Amino acid sequence: MSDFTIAIHGGAGTILRSDMTADLEKAYTDALEQALIAGYALLEKGISSVDAVKAAVTSLEDCILFNAGRGSVFAADGSQEMDASIMDGETLMAGAVSAVRNIKNPVELAYAVMTKSQHVMLNGQGAYDFALSQAIKTEKDDYFFSSFRYDQWKQLQGTDEAALDHNVSVKDMPAGQADKKFGTVGAVALDKNGNIAAATSTGGMTNKKWGRVGDSPIIGAGTYANNRTCAISCTGHGEPFIRAVTAYDVSCLMEYKGLSLHEAMHIVVHDKLLKIDGEGGMIGVDAKGNVAMIFNSEGMYRGMKCSDGRNEVSIYK
Amino acid sequence: MSDFTIAIHGGAGTILRSDMTADLEKAYTDALEQALIAGYALLEKGISSVDAVKAAVTSLEDCILFNAGRGSVFAADGSQEMDASIMDGETLMAGAVSAVRNIKNPVELAYAVMTKSQHVMLNGQGAYDFALSQAIKTEKDDYFFSSFRYDQWKQLQGTDEAALDHNVSVKDMPAGQADKKFGTVGAVALDKNGNIAAATSTGGMTNKKWGRVGDSPIIGAGTYANNRTCAISCTGHGEPFIRAVTAYDVSCLMEYKGLSLHEAMHIVVHDKLLKIDGEGGMIGVDAKGNVAMIFNSEGMYRGMKCSDGRNEVSIYK
Repeated sequence: MSDFTIAIHGGAGTILRSDMTADLEKAYTDALEQALIAGYALLEKGISSVDAVKAAVTSLEDCILFNAGRGSVFAADGSQEMDASIMDGETLMAGAVSAVRNIKNPVELAYAVMTKSQHVMLNGQGAYDFALSQAIKTEKDDYFFSSFRYDQWKQLQGTDEAALDHNVSVKDMPAGQADKKFGTVGAVALDKNGNIAAATSTGGMTNKKWGRVGDSPIIGAGTYANNRTCAISCTGHGEPFIRAVTAYDVSCLMEYKGLSLHEAMHIVVHDKLLKIDGEGGMIGVDAKGNVAMIFNSEGMYRGMKCSDGRNEVSIYK
Repeated sequence: MSDFTIAIHGGAGTILRSDMTADLEKAYTDALEQALIAGYALLEKGISSVDAVKAAVTSLEDCILFNAGRGSVFAADGSQEMDASIMDGETLMAGAVSAVRNIKNPVELAYAVMTKSQHVMLNGQGAYDFALSQAIKTEKDDYFFSSFRYDQWKQLQGTDEAALDHNVSVKDMPAGQADKKFGTVGAVALDKNGNIAAATSTGGMTNKKWGRVGDSPIIGAGTYANNRTCAISCTGHGEPFIRAVTAYDVSCLMEYKGLSLHEAMHIVVHDKLLKIDGEGGMIGVDAKGNVAMIFNSEGMYRGMKCSDGRNEVSIYK
């Protein structure tokens, strides 16, 4: 058990060692550690879990490797539409944005919705206008576009043609994006005051059409936090996660059936989600300092850093 | 207990007898009865609960009196953005649309998302493009705009100036729209095969800004259906309903704590929602034929029609 702790994920899915180079694996591991430190440093100073998850997710959004913020994948029309949400387990206040463009850190905008508006969820151009009114940092398309393409190309230089072909043929996606299919990022944290929080951010599905919204900006599906139970951030195939009201289901299993965090997460990820083809995973903390990272996919970029000394970053099962 | 049953709502909020004329009350009552009959007639023929809730909500969307479809309120920029969702309790499949414009029946579009796409939630222009690909009926602005204004004016002819002023000053809204603040519509039904379903549709909040999305298109918040527990459609101040994951909470209280439909709905509406200033209500059915309509506001436009002979339409407490 820890007095304070943070856990993060950088997406789940078919993450295969065969698609990975040592350099790329190190880049992912370093980025996860950097995000953990960004959040943990705040917790150590006694700053709130809400600020800690925001800092960790901001760090992941700024990294080109993950499908959120700067590294967001491209929708079918060539645009990058991002979703994010955040929830404070102490107050049950929440903020979310869907289908926003050109916002440097969508999680910052979700936080502004939670703290500076009367609303929980803002969408599209309206959310962008609200961002401007709150002086939320915006970036032009090339911040998201060119750097991403360039870095992606750089990362892939070392891999062999067969691996690329395999990705393309099996996943029906652009080379190197197979492992980004569910590349949402998220964080959960417990602070020194015993308050928990969760945040999630994503660029959605590659080649998504029709303004599709996944579970990430949906309070109860992709994100949920309640001091009485747990803080949860999900990553995976968004549609089953919405239908299963995944994050809140963990909370209800704890509150109404008395299950532990680990038991509740296990049931939701390995039983309930699998029954409706829901591939992915989640991270969770509770107010007692328990932490869990559970997934039913091949891998999940993940890590935790706890005041009891546990400090780990992993990718595969 | 009924073998099949349908319940509907046309929104909850501060509905005062003093703001109502006999003619207007009759218009609301007639419209609710018409929607009940539209759904019930299908159930009687053995058609599914999904089709029945869709038919009932379509009927309410086509009526200028309710804040959904044709009668949707205006956002701050003069546009009408609508949200809707539908869920099938047998399959746990769901469909939702948010921030759509010019769609005659948003619930038909939500149904198309559920049955014809790989997704659960589509948004904005993308959802509109999907609608066109599915030959979903669209209407020009004047279908929503001019008729609404005209009918509103007609309905208000009989009311006195003081009532109008009262509405304007107290509610800070255009005359006659005070009772439309939470004017979402919805339906839940149980069919002869023992399957339940729920659907919700709304024009959102009058003068809404920043692309605000409420609970209506959020599976788990405004709408939820699961044969094992209940089918729920909510109406009220959307933000607390999202934070409380209202519809799914009723389901969890039934599934995990063994509460009855009525007990679970009562706790959520009169305890959990009130604690976070969540004004509004909900309708629900379960697979055993229980039905309930519960609200913590002054009134809720509502009705039920059941195979055991119960047939009621009400507005006030």
